[in-house]
Amino acid sequence: MSRDEIELDFERPGRIGLEEAIYCAGKSTAQITEILATAAGRGAGLLLTRLEPERLAGLPAEAAAAIDYCAVSRTGFFGPRRPIDGPAQVVVVAAGTSDTPVAREVERVLQHQGRAATMVLDVGVAGLHRLTRRLGLIRAHPVVIVCAGMDAALASVVGGLVAGAVIAVPTSVGYGAAEGGRTALNAMLVSCAPGITVVNIDNGYGAACAALRILQASRRLA
Amino acid sequence: MSRDEIELDFERPGRIGLEEAIYCAGKSTAQITEILATAAGRGAGLLLTRLEPERLAGLPAEAAAAIDYCAVSRTGFFGPRRPIDGPAQVVVVAAGTSDTPVAREVERVLQHQGRAATMVLDVGVAGLHRLTRRLGLIRAHPVVIVCAGMDAALASVVGGLVAGAVIAVPTSVGYGAAEGGRTALNAMLVSCAPGITVVNIDNGYGAACAALRILQASRRLA
Amino acid sequence: MSRDEIELDFERPGRIGLEEAIYCAGKSTAQITEILATAAGRGAGLLLTRLEPERLAGLPAEAAAAIDYCAVSRTGFFGPRRPIDGPAQVVVVAAGTSDTPVAREVERVLQHQGRAATMVLDVGVAGLHRLTRRLGLIRAHPVVIVCAGMDAALASVVGGLVAGAVIAVPTSVGYGAAEGGRTALNAMLVSCAPGITVVNIDNGYGAACAALRILQASRRLA
Amino acid sequence: MSRDEIELDFERPGRIGLEEAIYCAGKSTAQITEILATAAGRGAGLLLTRLEPERLAGLPAEAAAAIDYCAVSRTGFFGPRRPIDGPAQVVVVAAGTSDTPVAREVERVLQHQGRAATMVLDVGVAGLHRLTRRLGLIRAHPVVIVCAGMDAALASVVGGLVAGAVIAVPTSVGYGAAEGGRTALNAMLVSCAPGITVVNIDNGYGAACAALRILQASRRLA
Amino acid sequence: MSRDEIELDFERPGRIGLEEAIYCAGKSTAQITEILATAAGRGAGLLLTRLEPERLAGLPAEAAAAIDYCAVSRTGFFGPRRPIDGPAQVVVVAAGTSDTPVAREVERVLQHQGRAATMVLDVGVAGLHRLTRRLGLIRAHPVVIVCAGMDAALASVVGGLVAGAVIAVPTSVGYGAAEGGRTALNAMLVSCAPGITVVNIDNGYGAACAALRILQASRRLA
Amino acid sequence: MSRDEIELDFERPGRIGLEEAIYCAGKSTAQITEILATAAGRGAGLLLTRLEPERLAGLPAEAAAAIDYCAVSRTGFFGPRRPIDGPAQVVVVAAGTSDTPVAREVERVLQHQGRAATMVLDVGVAGLHRLTRRLGLIRAHPVVIVCAGMDAALASVVGGLVAGAVIAVPTSVGYGAAEGGRTALNAMLVSCAPGITVVNIDNGYGAACAALRILQASRRLA
Amino acid sequence: MSRDEIELDFERPGRIGLEEAIYCAGKSTAQITEILATAAGRGAGLLLTRLEPERLAGLPAEAAAAIDYCAVSRTGFFGPRRPIDGPAQVVVVAAGTSDTPVAREVERVLQHQGRAATMVLDVGVAGLHRLTRRLGLIRAHPVVIVCAGMDAALASVVGGLVAGAVIAVPTSVGYGAAEGGRTALNAMLVSCAPGITVVNIDNGYGAACAALRILQASRRLA
Amino acid sequence: MSRDEIELDFERPGRIGLEEAIYCAGKSTAQITEILATAAGRGAGLLLTRLEPERLAGLPAEAAAAIDYCAVSRTGFFGPRRPIDGPAQVVVVAAGTSDTPVAREVERVLQHQGRAATMVLDVGVAGLHRLTRRLGLIRAHPVVIVCAGMDAALASVVGGLVAGAVIAVPTSVGYGAAEGGRTALNAMLVSCAPGITVVNIDNGYGAACAALRILQASRRLA
Repeated sequence: MSRDEIELDFERPGRIGLEEAIYCAGKSTAQITEILATAAGRGAGLLLTRLEPERLAGLPAEAAAAIDYCAVSRTGFFGPRRPIDGPAQVVVVAAGTSDTPVAREVERVLQHQGRAATMVLDVGVAGLHRLTRRLGLIRAHPVVIVCAGMDAALASVVGGLVAGAVIAVPTSVGYGAAEGGRTALNAMLVSCAPGITVVNIDNGYGAACAALRILQASRRLA
Repeated sequence: MSRDEIELDFERPGRIGLEEAIYCAGKSTAQITEILATAAGRGAGLLLTRLEPERLAGLPAEAAAAIDYCAVSRTGFFGPRRPIDGPAQVVVVAAGTSDTPVAREVERVLQHQGRAATMVLDVGVAGLHRLTRRLGLIRAHPVVIVCAGMDAALASVVGGLVAGAVIAVPTSVGYGAAEGGRTALNAMLVSCAPGITVVNIDNGYGAACAALRILQASRRLA
Repeated sequence: MSRDEIELDFERPGRIGLEEAIYCAGKSTAQITEILATAAGRGAGLLLTRLEPERLAGLPAEAAAAIDYCAVSRTGFFGPRRPIDGPAQVVVVAAGTSDTPVAREVERVLQHQGRAATMVLDVGVAGLHRLTRRLGLIRAHPVVIVCAGMDAALASVVGGLVAGAVIAVPTSVGYGAAEGGRTALNAMLVSCAPGITVVNIDNGYGAACAALRILQASRRLA
Repeated sequence: MSRDEIELDFERPGRIGLEEAIYCAGKSTAQITEILATAAGRGAGLLLTRLEPERLAGLPAEAAAAIDYCAVSRTGFFGPRRPIDGPAQVVVVAAGTSDTPVAREVERVLQHQGRAATMVLDVGVAGLHRLTRRLGLIRAHPVVIVCAGMDAALASVVGGLVAGAVIAVPTSVGYGAAEGGRTALNAMLVSCAPGITVVNIDNGYGAACAALRILQASRRLA
Repeated sequence: MSRDEIELDFERPGRIGLEEAIYCAGKSTAQITEILATAAGRGAGLLLTRLEPERLAGLPAEAAAAIDYCAVSRTGFFGPRRPIDGPAQVVVVAAGTSDTPVAREVERVLQHQGRAATMVLDVGVAGLHRLTRRLGLIRAHPVVIVCAGMDAALASVVGGLVAGAVIAVPTSVGYGAAEGGRTALNAMLVSCAPGITVVNIDNGYGAACAALRILQASRRLA
Repeated sequence: MSRDEIELDFERPGRIGLEEAIYCAGKSTAQITEILATAAGRGAGLLLTRLEPERLAGLPAEAAAAIDYCAVSRTGFFGPRRPIDGPAQVVVVAAGTSDTPVAREVERVLQHQGRAATMVLDVGVAGLHRLTRRLGLIRAHPVVIVCAGMDAALASVVGGLVAGAVIAVPTSVGYGAAEGGRTALNAMLVSCAPGITVVNIDNGYGAACAALRILQASRRLA
Repeated sequence: MSRDEIELDFERPGRIGLEEAIYCAGKSTAQITEILATAAGRGAGLLLTRLEPERLAGLPAEAAAAIDYCAVSRTGFFGPRRPIDGPAQVVVVAAGTSDTPVAREVERVLQHQGRAATMVLDVGVAGLHRLTRRLGLIRAHPVVIVCAGMDAALASVVGGLVAGAVIAVPTSVGYGAAEGGRTALNAMLVSCAPGITVVNIDNGYGAACAALRILQASRRLA
Repeated sequence: MSRDEIELDFERPGRIGLEEAIYCAGKSTAQITEILATAAGRGAGLLLTRLEPERLAGLPAEAAAAIDYCAVSRTGFFGPRRPIDGPAQVVVVAAGTSDTPVAREVERVLQHQGRAATMVLDVGVAGLHRLTRRLGLIRAHPVVIVCAGMDAALASVVGGLVAGAVIAVPTSVGYGAAEGGRTALNAMLVSCAPGITVVNIDNGYGAACAALRILQASRRLA
């Protein structure tokens, strides 16, 4: 494979305010290695998503060592990144223990772009008291990201209780009629609570980017 | 069409404790008319479901007049039926105004078999206070039937709050990703609240029959 | 149908900042009439969505006359509504002539809540020059709502060019492999442009509510 | 992963009468280990479902040794559990040899909550005599759970022959048009026998919980 | 539309032993009229399927009068047809009253080709005694055609009890999870009874042709 | 696992004329071992399908040695089997090299029941001359089984050229829009050639059983 | 609706060589009327597709009279159009009478752009002789468009016999497992004949445009 | 497996102008080995597709050594092949790094048939400048092949900008709502740019063959 097959979009931050990120699942080790070299050559920082531990282990040792890796979310920070800017304005709410990897991906992507997040985990509606106990904390944040699989009922309940922007992330948690997250996705799209927006299944990265877009927009809206 | 095409199952009550019911949607007016005549000839009562007003209007006047009809649930009682036996042991909980026809079908089927039902309507989780306000009433019934379309989140929330038997009826309310009730059905099947059972989309008749089976079983269980 | 079947959520504005709205498609004329009477009795304003002309014509004359109706978007304003507050901070971008009804629904919902919208219609990517010609206008708004059916490619192109919050509304425009809007929905969910959020097919109402949530959030974010 | 990500619902038995259970398939070994430690610290019993042998082998030796494990159903009992209370009131009927794991999961969940079950296995309708031979035994139980994959015809035949509560569990047995259990699920949902309720594909746990809800309800119904 | 658009396959009987048949649903009235004229010109007989009463009424009066029409099955015989040849060797078994139109289509197609059929209707497995009572009659026929919608359990039960050739016809009877007959189709394809073959949903015509092929083959097999 | 979980249907040959067969894919090695022991104890022959080489290797050495195994079709003959009875009356026609395993399964099942089959392989319609060259041979058999994946066009072409009974077996050959054989299945169900019957995807066993049913029926039809 | 909602792409011919066409199905009568007025004002010709007779009747009389309408294909020519340029280089092959409307749409779109087409209709593979008889004529054209519904086998057979460019148009002809044309679409996509390309279901317009692109390309390729 | 199961179509080049190619994914190593031996015996060249490295390693050493293998596209050239004939008339445009394997398959198939291709990779529309920068180069080729997964928006944008023949190849790149390439496939089929044709998911081979058919046709069209 020749070098010219890969053309990183280093103009993206200037255009839409989001750093280039590398989705590793569909790329060969050779491609990732080349991308890291290109970024290093420019002194640019990169966010790596869907980077499995085995894939990390397969990278050249020097490159792997330069990656700040999180095994739960399978994300890596390569090169310089933005410092955290002020208190958390985004809260990540997750329904069950199995939704943690997606919730952590949201948190990591926000951190990479200089934003803190408050985490409220394991508050599925089967035990509603777990959620209501944390409601004050959730409402204190203008942007709320809800991660839930299976029936995704958490998104509707939260959406009916908070006034902030609500971004819902369906997860692939569940089996059978969960259909790999399709049921959670559809349920969030037809939520009885108005104004909820949705991203792709397991797409913590996308939800974080959507939150970042809102934070950017708010500077102009204020 | 010759008479021998239709063979009513008058032995059903003795075998499984449920009266014969006629699902009118897939039958011709001639078939329904013949069925009514057969039942009348035996002095047997019949429950008619999915009987559209136009279909009712097309029946012979005498037959139509003998039907106790409910336009909301599109059900009819023909001939003798059982008297109501004691206070309501079943509560029907519905999420939105659009779920009312299904909830009313549940109520009517129970009535036809001699059982009262308590109705708790318009308590969708987008306004959770509407539900919590009625929680004591719902918990007072050992059997709970939840009718909800769209995201069907009501089933999970109720299922996490009550100890009784919970039967969930997905409705075809909603559009787009609601997929004609398929999303509600799937969401109920993968509910995060344990022990919820589900019937077909818009199948108020089936949910009522399931409740009747539980009431029958309880006599032997006590 | 008895009155107690309908319980409007008049507490919603205080809780989540959005006015109660009535989705008319799944309700009977009797139910809508009753809802209007209830709102009128409280002096409350209501937004009516998916109100077909035939349905409007079937309402009591006095009620119908009190409705500010838009046939393109099939929406109605009943009773008092908020005055428009300041210049447009939301731009609605639509791909083709057939997407106009959904785009207009977005505009009307925003207006009902006191917000103006800028409309940029008929700019599908098959003629990319139509879009690039309007790019400056679009970028001038911090919140962008993109309505597109068929391949929904407009959402990705816009998402790659603007830094604001992007809410995508798939429409049911198209036939065959368009699958009633499912293809547009899926394409928006897997957009190659990061941070796009999506609502249900043809759900202009939901997109407008999501924009309103962002505008609310921005006041606290600034 | 920090401890606060996991919040067990120890209040569940008091609220809905069902013990907390841990679905192991979507959790990391670290998460399961932490959950077991938490439960042990409280002296609480736990039911573990979908616990693969390899996963069991990966747990700390002391924790693994404390688990009463069943390889067929992939379930584990951890800590104290309820003694069996009286004769079996639930019968589990399974169509084929391949449905045994699901049927055994039902039995184990019931046992963990102190309930015995009668097992009637390998009675698929392709050889109807196998079923009719056992019909008296099946009818002796007020609650019947039917496990079947492929065409799921067993559920309809049983549902037409017994008066008790019938809970149907579709299994993922079969290939091609069996669609991973979706055909069995749909067939059970549209069964020609009235009043059958259904749970998710392969969800023996859910069926057992539904039976437990009925047994709880019956105490109040009697 | 010019005449040369239609080219009837009058060589079909010689090639595969089946008469040409006209599926009317997808053809314009002009096309059907032209086809009848062509057949009349050659003195050939034709079978018309899916001929709705309204369509029949729209044909030229002379052509319509020449059609031996059956409203239940929506079939018509035009021109000469074969006399019935011997006693019935095919039995058509149908589950419910709503399956009658499909069952009658099978019967009519067989009659058009000179074959009688025995009809056994309304023997769904929800009342198994209805079927077992007729089992001797069914077994007396070497070819069995089973028409059933919803869960299609009848096909499996019959397939497990008879030794003859079994052709299953799924019908579109049912709603919701019946998915327009897809569930019945899939259930028949994965029947637990071995050696059942299946045709398209509501395809009584195809099932009859398959039976005719078997009858033809048997002459060479004997 | 206790022995009584498995109940072989040794009465099947007397009832429907087909030997008991064991579908190994969904069974544990322990279950298969027990089944073989049971059959050996009765001196009964068994057909084993979907028996992977690894599974065969895992059986007790004595049992494995007693199996006449075919790796292409993954079938095994255990114990006594019927001698071949007369010349082939069934021809198996397959489209491509990748369809061979399914075609060989058909052949082996027929052989186990004492019937020979003629094999015509690699005659897909992309090179129509390959098929027409063999047409005389195919037509010489009263029963034709067509195995094809991808577009399954071979079934329609054959069905339009032969007068015998045609049983079509869709295979899972292909990728993408082949949808695991679903496209071939659907294409065969809606074949433009009349009277084709269809079995499940990759179900060579079922097609052979259907052919055996026809051969049985023909004895009574002659 | 204000005029600026519609922006015709009159630059399209210069950019991609194809005239602007108006898909009427998704547009209101008001929108179509406005489009015609705009085109008339510029003296531009327009192609109208999916123009139902009722819709045509609803247009202003003058506009309707100016349309050269074909009821079979539901297409209209408005204003000036290109004269036919040379002999037909495209042949349109259709499987059955019901595919004629789509085949005629292809022909009309080609005519509007100045290209003749040869029509070969009613040559489905169920009667293969009808196709082989016309093979020489088909092969005489360098571009072949195949229209077929149901199993779409015609596309594979033609694709295996001709060397020219083959564009396949699936049609929605068929019922049940035809799934509205989805089966034909998928079968064409997985055709066993190499190098066939496919357009959307019933998209005669798209197939004609693809042929026009090839004719344009050939001028530069020669 | 006996030799006569495999019948290579060596007459294909003469009939349709395309060389025989071997799709290795569905064939056993024994089958591939036999095919290579047959081709070698005739001195014929073969193209091998979907040949995984592990499969290559499993072939007899002599055969493997004779294969000109490309690991990115998983293709192999065996035996003689055509020399490259003239400058590139086909350009392959790919959206992202993950689409490279499919794009390279296109290139290799063209090379095997003696045609060069120009490669334009990594030009997805999320960064539109990457595409517009290359537009002149793309437009210089009369045939354009677009490879894209996820939302496949690149196909529509390119289709709206170039006048040549456009063949779109959906790839299986993406997750969740990408549905294994089905979303890209559908989006390409309903592209807002007219005259785009589509091949199966990941079918670089098919797209190349379609381009070759166009190049063949152009010789007769000029």
